[in-house]
Amino acid sequence: MESVAQPVSSGAARPGGRTARTRERVLAAIMAILVEQGFDGVTVEAVAGRSGVHRTTVYRRWRDTGGLLADAFDAARELPWEPPDTGTLLGDLIEVNRQVVAALTERPPIAAALIAASFRSPAAARALRDFWEDRFARAGVVVSRAAGRGEIGADVEARTVLVAACAPVFYEIVLMRAPVTDDLAERYARAGVAAAR
Amino acid sequence: MESVAQPVSSGAARPGGRTARTRERVLAAIMAILVEQGFDGVTVEAVAGRSGVHRTTVYRRWRDTGGLLADAFDAARELPWEPPDTGTLLGDLIEVNRQVVAALTERPPIAAALIAASFRSPAAARALRDFWEDRFARAGVVVSRAAGRGEIGADVEARTVLVAACAPVFYEIVLMRAPVTDDLAERYARAGVAAAR
Repeated sequence: MESVAQPVSSGAARPGGRTARTRERVLAAIMAILVEQGFDGVTVEAVAGRSGVHRTTVYRRWRDTGGLLADAFDAARELPWEPPDTGTLLGDLIEVNRQVVAALTERPPIAAALIAASFRSPAAARALRDFWEDRFARAGVVVSRAAGRGEIGADVEARTVLVAACAPVFYEIVLMRAPVTDDLAERYARAGVAAAR
Repeated sequence: MESVAQPVSSGAARPGGRTARTRERVLAAIMAILVEQGFDGVTVEAVAGRSGVHRTTVYRRWRDTGGLLADAFDAARELPWEPPDTGTLLGDLIEVNRQVVAALTERPPIAAALIAASFRSPAAARALRDFWEDRFARAGVVVSRAAGRGEIGADVEARTVLVAACAPVFYEIVLMRAPVTDDLAERYARAGVAAAR
């Protein structure tokens, strides 16, 4: 049986340790079950069985489906990510939007499954919002660099520009389930640039 | 027992008839159950019990949960709706966005519950897309009138402008579950106008 003395954060602080490996196995099991069976499949019992981690450990550290899903988002947030730096605001927003398109259309559809799960679990919904807000905060440099270059005014609110560029891509793929066209990323990146001006 | 000889479309063609009244009762039951219990509650059995319509009738005309939810969207699409006509593109887009905000924050949260259901049922997802595409098509006159007034170019694609204005509102409320601020509708209406120019 795994040790249950370490909270998840200690696991993250000791990469490669036993606690970290336990989390990796649990996270891989969450993703696999989520993609194969959806929200209803992600139970403490199923994740324990799939990961080989004792169910008592899974229960004590992740508690329930909401805790499991929230940690899946947290793990995504912890991944290294650097905003693009193409030299223009349009170029940067196109690249951000291409990454959004790639995440939302990847196979297996992990991001899409996590978004669907956020409609079933308040904990997952909070974790999804935290993930996106973290990305918007990190991507803010795209807008401040454009202001530094004189492309846009210095008083432009970064988050509004990023949402103006990205939200239509989320809307089309996640809510409209529209086929992804080649120009989707660029079309709304242009809307973001227009909003910034 | 209700007659099952008439398909739903015939009911719509005879407003006030028995078939139309049956549909009204079934639709009211779907909405009530959806808001109270979510997707899992919307079964043929539960809708029959709540509406007082015989379960054989519900089964033959709506078939399953997906058919029930799809008809709820279709009913919304059939409601009379006229796009705003304030005299400016910005004014019209603000009004459209205010209607989106109102729909997404109304109590009971029917629109929010229908969107959540679209993640559980492909039939509901298709019906949701049809509903929104119908609204975008009808709202296109907002953009063509702006072109007629010389506010924007004649070659501006109406749907792109409408999505640029509305999608951020959907994103903030539905996916980010962000608190609705007073300026939300206007902020992204301005982004839509900028995209049109």
